[in-house]
Amino acid sequence: MQQPPETEPLNPPERTLMGPGPSEVHPRVLRVMSAPLIGHLDAAFIEIMDEVQELLRYTFQTDNKWTIPVSGTGSASMETAFANVVEPGETVLVPTNGYFGGRMESMAERAGGDVVTVDAPWGEPLQPDDVAAAFDEHDPDVFGFVHAETSTGVLQPHVSELTSIAHEHDAYVIADTVTSLGGVELRVDEWDIDVAYSGGQKCLSCPPGASPLTVNDRTMEKVLNRDTEVRSWYLDLSLLEGYWGEERAYHHTAPITNVYALRESLQLVAEEGLEARWERHREMATKLKTGLEDLGFELNPDDEFWLPSLNAVRVPDGVDDTELLDYLKREYDIEVASGLGALEGEILRIGCMGYSARPQNIEFLLAAIEDGLEAQGFDQ
Amino acid sequence: MQQPPETEPLNPPERTLMGPGPSEVHPRVLRVMSAPLIGHLDAAFIEIMDEVQELLRYTFQTDNKWTIPVSGTGSASMETAFANVVEPGETVLVPTNGYFGGRMESMAERAGGDVVTVDAPWGEPLQPDDVAAAFDEHDPDVFGFVHAETSTGVLQPHVSELTSIAHEHDAYVIADTVTSLGGVELRVDEWDIDVAYSGGQKCLSCPPGASPLTVNDRTMEKVLNRDTEVRSWYLDLSLLEGYWGEERAYHHTAPITNVYALRESLQLVAEEGLEARWERHREMATKLKTGLEDLGFELNPDDEFWLPSLNAVRVPDGVDDTELLDYLKREYDIEVASGLGALEGEILRIGCMGYSARPQNIEFLLAAIEDGLEAQGFDQ
Repeated sequence: MQQPPETEPLNPPERTLMGPGPSEVHPRVLRVMSAPLIGHLDAAFIEIMDEVQELLRYTFQTDNKWTIPVSGTGSASMETAFANVVEPGETVLVPTNGYFGGRMESMAERAGGDVVTVDAPWGEPLQPDDVAAAFDEHDPDVFGFVHAETSTGVLQPHVSELTSIAHEHDAYVIADTVTSLGGVELRVDEWDIDVAYSGGQKCLSCPPGASPLTVNDRTMEKVLNRDTEVRSWYLDLSLLEGYWGEERAYHHTAPITNVYALRESLQLVAEEGLEARWERHREMATKLKTGLEDLGFELNPDDEFWLPSLNAVRVPDGVDDTELLDYLKREYDIEVASGLGALEGEILRIGCMGYSARPQNIEFLLAAIEDGLEAQGFDQ
Repeated sequence: MQQPPETEPLNPPERTLMGPGPSEVHPRVLRVMSAPLIGHLDAAFIEIMDEVQELLRYTFQTDNKWTIPVSGTGSASMETAFANVVEPGETVLVPTNGYFGGRMESMAERAGGDVVTVDAPWGEPLQPDDVAAAFDEHDPDVFGFVHAETSTGVLQPHVSELTSIAHEHDAYVIADTVTSLGGVELRVDEWDIDVAYSGGQKCLSCPPGASPLTVNDRTMEKVLNRDTEVRSWYLDLSLLEGYWGEERAYHHTAPITNVYALRESLQLVAEEGLEARWERHREMATKLKTGLEDLGFELNPDDEFWLPSLNAVRVPDGVDDTELLDYLKREYDIEVASGLGALEGEILRIGCMGYSARPQNIEFLLAAIEDGLEAQGFDQ
């Protein structure tokens, strides 16, 4: 018999979370996480499911019946989108201008898709002309794009133009809205997006574990009429249909507490109002950006592609970015992240999301960065 | 602009959970769920990951390095096992004596496996002779079996005999321990199980969302040397290796709060001691079983295959089981479940798991059932 290990009571440090996620969780959301469980087939839980679906529709700005939380973190809702929509042998067009386009490629390939790409440099959005050219060349069945690139801090404009091009070619559009949902203008129906997925721990400020997904009827018809089974049982929407649809039959055990938390996070969105929330994110991020510019940092993307929820900035010449990040964590318990992929070592990624997007956090971060620069001998 | 829906504050009913899961959550576990988040790459979180792995090894009674929580509910850890171990074209042997053997079949097929079966009636365990005959006939590469069948309340004995047969044929053994881990004797290394998966919401009494998985080195070598990519990106152990292994590199965002909760649940296991915990489950379930027999219920499986964590009982002649379940929920807020699959309408499934396996719950349930029988005109 092996002996039990000895562990101390859980006591995580108190961090100010200003990285690319998770963001800080609202106290009301933390509170509902300690509510006792009820069964995942209990009538009371089914009512909670209905409410979560309704609140998600509002937050996505969609009427899609198929609007659900997937039982996993953001990458699970992402894979649910690709694994269900893509059938073996179909052509899938994905972007190369950020880390998450690469992940789309890997997921589409595992679903059996043939992947082709549309290019733009890291730190820039896709150009509609390039997307149109890629459609003319490859005639893809599915087109994935990233609305808010967490790796580059770039907001994709022209979304309606992109979806128009795709629909002229009878393709299905999957949008990554992980870092935009609930923080940046997003209108799924008006912009004619077929499928959008997101995560909890960004602008919704919800602990990760139940991740938003919306699928329109046209796409769900494709999914329900596939020639081959979806390659994941856990993420198969035709099976999840039994649980989240009319029947409410058992498929798998839902992450009950995470559904409670998502409901409360979405209720906070509804109470604040979506447009007011977008405006708050922009206002707080403007304060942050201005402060950073005063300290010598420069926004990496062009101003017109600025993503308020994730500010990618170049560090001033001579500043050691790793040392600065360590200093912020060590001296101030602040989390901020460095670059990822092609921008590793070139930028800092500073989140301004959900409950973290408030004056206290911004002032504290700016003061801490100023101190960190001074510690490296940079006086303002 | 769509208008926000109006919802009330979350207020789930207080249930006494005595069904097949979720079980009730220990107050200490509920408490840590409201701890503030830290980043999934934070050094403090990595320490928590290490502790969870160590505690899981103890609970599984294994030295396997590859012992991790999968970022989803129990079906996600189940699919991680099958999706990684099974390669397209391999033969997979699964049982037909319960609901979860059927799920194994579906998952193995989606991984590209050719499925063959070994039969036993619902309500009975597999016989080693039948397993040996199936091996001789089909020479499978992978063999899945269910240690504790939640649909039938049957405990599979002879586990070492089953794994011996499989290993004589160089096959890999995957064990479903969803309803046994932390409640019923289970010794992964001593019994020579290659892969075991479980869930949080059964005998660990943890909210579902981070699900235990253990894989031995021999199997991990197979996984890391696959000819084809795993068909799910989210569940690919060769990628998760970067996050849970030495490197601690970013793969996906872990369900941070669920990992906190699992840690606390496992700490409660370690404090109680695994053997004492198995004994408590047996003792409480004996009390329950005796009480039920006094009320005219009969255990469905033979006594030697009795699964203390999930008691499958036949209702006395003339009792309306649906009416009884409704009565328990309506009058007492108690959750108990009916049969599933081939045993639908024939049995009740009464859980005795984790924090729910305590005298208060058992006495309350027995009193409520007695009352429910009286309401149907059955006097004892």
